Amino acid sequence: MEQSLKHLLDTAKAYEEQLPPKPAMGTRQQPLASYLDIALHNTEATPAMIKALCADAVKFKFATVFTNPVFLPLVKGALEGSGVNVGSIAGFPLGAFPTKIKVEEARSYIEAGADEIDMVMAVGMLKGGEVEHVYEDIQQVAEIVHERGKLLKVILETAVLTRYEKILACLISKAAGADFVKTSTGFSKGGATIEDVDLMRRVVGPPEEMGVKAAGGIHSLDDAMRMINTGANRLGARVAVEIIEEYRQSKAG
Amino acid sequence: MEQSLKHLLDTAKAYEEQLPPKPAMGTRQQPLASYLDIALHNTEATPAMIKALCADAVKFKFATVFTNPVFLPLVKGALEGSGVNVGSIAGFPLGAFPTKIKVEEARSYIEAGADEIDMVMAVGMLKGGEVEHVYEDIQQVAEIVHERGKLLKVILETAVLTRYEKILACLISKAAGADFVKTSTGFSKGGATIEDVDLMRRVVGPPEEMGVKAAGGIHSLDDAMRMINTGANRLGARVAVEIIEEYRQSKAG
Repeated sequence: MEQSLKHLLDTAKAYEEQLPPKPAMGTRQQPLASYLDIALHNTEATPAMIKALCADAVKFKFATVFTNPVFLPLVKGALEGSGVNVGSIAGFPLGAFPTKIKVEEARSYIEAGADEIDMVMAVGMLKGGEVEHVYEDIQQVAEIVHERGKLLKVILETAVLTRYEKILACLISKAAGADFVKTSTGFSKGGATIEDVDLMRRVVGPPEEMGVKAAGGIHSLDDAMRMINTGANRLGARVAVEIIEEYRQSKAG
Repeated sequence: MEQSLKHLLDTAKAYEEQLPPKPAMGTRQQPLASYLDIALHNTEATPAMIKALCADAVKFKFATVFTNPVFLPLVKGALEGSGVNVGSIAGFPLGAFPTKIKVEEARSYIEAGADEIDMVMAVGMLKGGEVEHVYEDIQQVAEIVHERGKLLKVILETAVLTRYEKILACLISKAAGADFVKTSTGFSKGGATIEDVDLMRRVVGPPEEMGVKAAGGIHSLDDAMRMINTGANRLGARVAVEIIEEYRQSKAG
């Protein structure tokens, strides 16, 4: 373990000097909607708003619906048989929760129907040099999620990380077994940027090896296409419906 | 239960027309610092920042230190024997978590040393009319917290509530056995206002019956004194140190 963490630190230093080349992304085969997760995490979101969100997701065939977990029974019911995945979160949005609570969240939310867990990395621990804590935190959640055949994304909160911390966070997430790295929660200082998505894709390698999800600050079709062209293979957006409608108009026009 | 919830709804309607008179607050007997909780919940807070926060709290004898719960072992160690309480959170800051997760958080964080739990109400459920859910959510956390002899505050997130919802949230929190109502998490659209603290104090009655904690947007000694004079008997502030220093200078000057 210590040996492999040392290797991650060395690799992060080397990548800070020189990022690896951008891996080949292939051509987009699937419909745009299947790249989109629709999300609503506001404190004040009501059951009625969550129902409407799910109806949109079913209508447009989005990949996944992300809400706060008190709504999981409602979301599971609304998406039943639709092919749209149920998403949930762990340690969201602040990240600084004990691993055992994140694990308990993942276990409990999967039991309630979640197909994907977007967990927030222990950001302050990474910044404080507690690399082993950050690794174990992800690794333990990954174990629970994968035992149940589900998907784990790790939110790095790139807006508060240095370039070196972003690289290291990607390397730790990949080594700890996560399926995706994701830029942002939408509750910090900023969302996804082109530069960060480019860095993340270069560090984690091709999409067959690891996913990159861009979230936060994706407000238009143009934003969405630029993120996909830069290396994201999943997008999280509150305005997923507007993006798809803009896309359909652009094809009709 | 249904009968008593009906009574809360009727009382809230009546109070919306006419708030009860302001209860007598008595004269402030204790030092200003004992009214102040110092808080740091940023994603990017490092162990070193948390240590510095605790050192400030011990130096100025604040009531409680609130951090994200991954830091509880560190905070407990740093405050040992100081008389400063260890604070933690549940369902923070979004509130929309299943009751069993909030209960598990409270249990786990008290086990790790927390003396006070500031939980976030299920705001969207209140807005959706799910009054029984909101009541049970608080009542179940209160049970765990009080079994262990600790203190429970309920954060209402007043900035996103209507006047009626604020009144009802206070009545539910009191009926469900919480020790304090608290205005804000600091992560929503706004913090404590004079109007909200006045309303909360009128609805919950005198400090012997229930506490009122004002948090968010308290940036100066003037803000702090106005909140206390309006009925708050606990304040949460990132700038607790600056407030106390301003207070000392005002007394020295």
